[in-house]
Amino acid sequence: MEYFEKYISDNRDRFLDELFGLLRIPSISSLEANKPDMYRAAEYWKQTLLQAGADRAEIYETQGNPVTYGEKIMNPNKPTVLIYGHMDVMPVDPIELWIVPPFEPEIRDEKIWARGAEDNKGQSFMHAKAFEMMVKTNTLPCNVKFMIEGEEEIGSPNLEKWCEDHKEMLKADIILVSDTSMIARDTPSITTGLRGLAYWQVEVTGPSRDLHSGLFGGAVANPINVLAKMIAQMTDENGRITIPGFYDDVVEVSAEERALLAQAPFDLDKYMKSLDIAEVSGEIGYSTTERTGIRPTFDVCGIWGGYTGEGAKTVLPSKAFAKISSRLVPNQDHTKIEILFKEHFEKIAPSSVRVEVNYLHGGYGYACPIDLPAYLAAEKAYLDIYGKRPVPFRSGGSIPIISTFEQVLGIKSILMGFGLESDAIHSPNENFPLEQFFNGIRTIPLFYKYFAEIF
Amino acid sequence: MEYFEKYISDNRDRFLDELFGLLRIPSISSLEANKPDMYRAAEYWKQTLLQAGADRAEIYETQGNPVTYGEKIMNPNKPTVLIYGHMDVMPVDPIELWIVPPFEPEIRDEKIWARGAEDNKGQSFMHAKAFEMMVKTNTLPCNVKFMIEGEEEIGSPNLEKWCEDHKEMLKADIILVSDTSMIARDTPSITTGLRGLAYWQVEVTGPSRDLHSGLFGGAVANPINVLAKMIAQMTDENGRITIPGFYDDVVEVSAEERALLAQAPFDLDKYMKSLDIAEVSGEIGYSTTERTGIRPTFDVCGIWGGYTGEGAKTVLPSKAFAKISSRLVPNQDHTKIEILFKEHFEKIAPSSVRVEVNYLHGGYGYACPIDLPAYLAAEKAYLDIYGKRPVPFRSGGSIPIISTFEQVLGIKSILMGFGLESDAIHSPNENFPLEQFFNGIRTIPLFYKYFAEIF
Repeated sequence: MEYFEKYISDNRDRFLDELFGLLRIPSISSLEANKPDMYRAAEYWKQTLLQAGADRAEIYETQGNPVTYGEKIMNPNKPTVLIYGHMDVMPVDPIELWIVPPFEPEIRDEKIWARGAEDNKGQSFMHAKAFEMMVKTNTLPCNVKFMIEGEEEIGSPNLEKWCEDHKEMLKADIILVSDTSMIARDTPSITTGLRGLAYWQVEVTGPSRDLHSGLFGGAVANPINVLAKMIAQMTDENGRITIPGFYDDVVEVSAEERALLAQAPFDLDKYMKSLDIAEVSGEIGYSTTERTGIRPTFDVCGIWGGYTGEGAKTVLPSKAFAKISSRLVPNQDHTKIEILFKEHFEKIAPSSVRVEVNYLHGGYGYACPIDLPAYLAAEKAYLDIYGKRPVPFRSGGSIPIISTFEQVLGIKSILMGFGLESDAIHSPNENFPLEQFFNGIRTIPLFYKYFAEIF
Repeated sequence: MEYFEKYISDNRDRFLDELFGLLRIPSISSLEANKPDMYRAAEYWKQTLLQAGADRAEIYETQGNPVTYGEKIMNPNKPTVLIYGHMDVMPVDPIELWIVPPFEPEIRDEKIWARGAEDNKGQSFMHAKAFEMMVKTNTLPCNVKFMIEGEEEIGSPNLEKWCEDHKEMLKADIILVSDTSMIARDTPSITTGLRGLAYWQVEVTGPSRDLHSGLFGGAVANPINVLAKMIAQMTDENGRITIPGFYDDVVEVSAEERALLAQAPFDLDKYMKSLDIAEVSGEIGYSTTERTGIRPTFDVCGIWGGYTGEGAKTVLPSKAFAKISSRLVPNQDHTKIEILFKEHFEKIAPSSVRVEVNYLHGGYGYACPIDLPAYLAAEKAYLDIYGKRPVPFRSGGSIPIISTFEQVLGIKSILMGFGLESDAIHSPNENFPLEQFFNGIRTIPLFYKYFAEIF
């Protein structure tokens, strides 16, 4: 593989320059104002794929943000790898906590700092550059297709239909995705499970206008007090979710599998220290890795209402709001959970307030068998670069579109992640170590090689 | 009193122009940025008093915002009335709900619309104009002192010391205050009780940075979930506050007095309709007027944390905040309640988070006996103008400085309010009917007259 090493060292600065160009585009999919940036990002990907050696690359419209698709078909008898990635990123607030402006990437301490540095611009760009490298060194062993979408961070609301409309074009033997993490820098891992997701926004209305808390306080329901009580009721003292029927479809993981999962290296003290917390917290009877890997959750992602400025204002507000999410385990159906939550939330509301529940998005979980040819190819690729057999790992995160791919296209996905826990994705100061970026570019061609051999 | 009617009709437009000049100054005391506006308002008051006929008027510095003081001493043998009012106003958000910009006063539907139109610029300006009218018509029967402060809306943190430092100057027989409401336009009332207040800001910190809710959710305490549970615990299913010792000093009102209070006109259906609520809510065993008049409360005035923008962001935030207030009844000591809350809030916090409690301000309640000479004078003045004997009324609101005056200066206050419930003080679209403004200017000189006679 000396020619790969030479190619990487000859083109190292250019690879980073090109990635930085993509990172400078503030393609935040949840903000309407950034819509034009989604088109800029789509065009950037199109040019990237053409320059890397794609036969063709196009921007496809959807009901929402565009998808960039490109392909190189060498030989119909060879296996086909479909790369999935996303060009959209999360919002950046609280902006004041960033050490670099989030859309002005910089290298510091051997890491790339920017929103999207890892999730998912950095990780998907590794695939573009690995593809370019195989093309330019005439070592591409498979047909390649790229599908880069612009709505992953808002739940991919339009990609399912787009896949249905382009089934033939998207035919492939495996979907290859780098949108996950490894357990640690020296512990490669392959994500074999993903959690599903359901996400709501709720609004509680008390009086029709803000009131003086002295003249009305104590006699008129305060929507913040009420919302707090409603949220408090959604989990019990054992950390279990109280929505009736919520756990009906949760498959209890066997004692054997729990023992296997417990073998993954995990240092609780280090974990707590890295988060600066005195104690972990969660469902009674499960370990920290089980709580994120195999159990559903109930988290309030945002809350607001009343006076939130400087100093004191004695107000009894008209409204209170919350953004609420549940991570779901693979067998749970988010469309069913959506309704169970809504019905329960409406039911527990006192008659002194009105509530409105809006479902923002949701998705299914995913499970990948470890005897899949693609899994074995990925295992060998990591072993060659990291010197260690990767650990199969159930992640707490969600990429709902992965299970959609299986349903719509009938294709399994292999999740080769190079992220690290310290990357701070979705947080201020997102970063991606240069070492991981270049190791990704080294590992990916080996996956192609072994996948072509095993297939 | 024909000469008063003539004076009012001759000067009506000028009175309003001068009030509008004061209303245009955005003297929001809780915002540091508006500090210069406090000095503009203080100067405006100084000029207003001098022009009305004060012997002298000065701006006094404090550790915080200035106080404008002015006086006219005619005859040391006559009784002295000390007017108290405040030049500062509440913040204006949510700004988008205002039908006129809050600092650009307008008259619509026979009402003045602006922040401060009633509370307290409109009501205190009635005193300036009534004073001017008595001076110009040579009918002033008492000595007059004005003390207009700039920190009422943030709890008057510096006025107590200022009063202590100027005890001699402030000597008076009664303090006259218009910073309260009447029961209704056709039901004059005199406020004989005020609630005390305690106000805290709390901060709950989970992990040291915002986390991905998928990778960490379920295993790390979410500060919003925790804050909601803590707030929920502060009141029980009977609407009673659960802080140990909270009710220790609450004097239960006798059955006789409750029967008397129940005679004040109150239409529950109209009340609920005006607030657009299907049901009132509060402490079991008490009526709506009792809940605001004679019982303490626990209201969250503001809450915030996590992602509050458009769309969905799956984040497990680092911090959550709330602004919490309790209205207290006259015998409760806010300095004791301050500590009881703080200790309880810290005690119920799970060890997976850190909490910080900051006391923003507080004050004592107040009670005015209905056989006080000033009460009788006020009663006669209202009767003359409104044709009805005013009802003694226990308000749910707080003017903590009123009880401080009693403690520091040894002077009782009489609360002659002309506000109405529909004035929307502290809310968007604060307003003050012209009729109430001019009736105030008519009623005040009669108070002086009767007070000088009775005294």
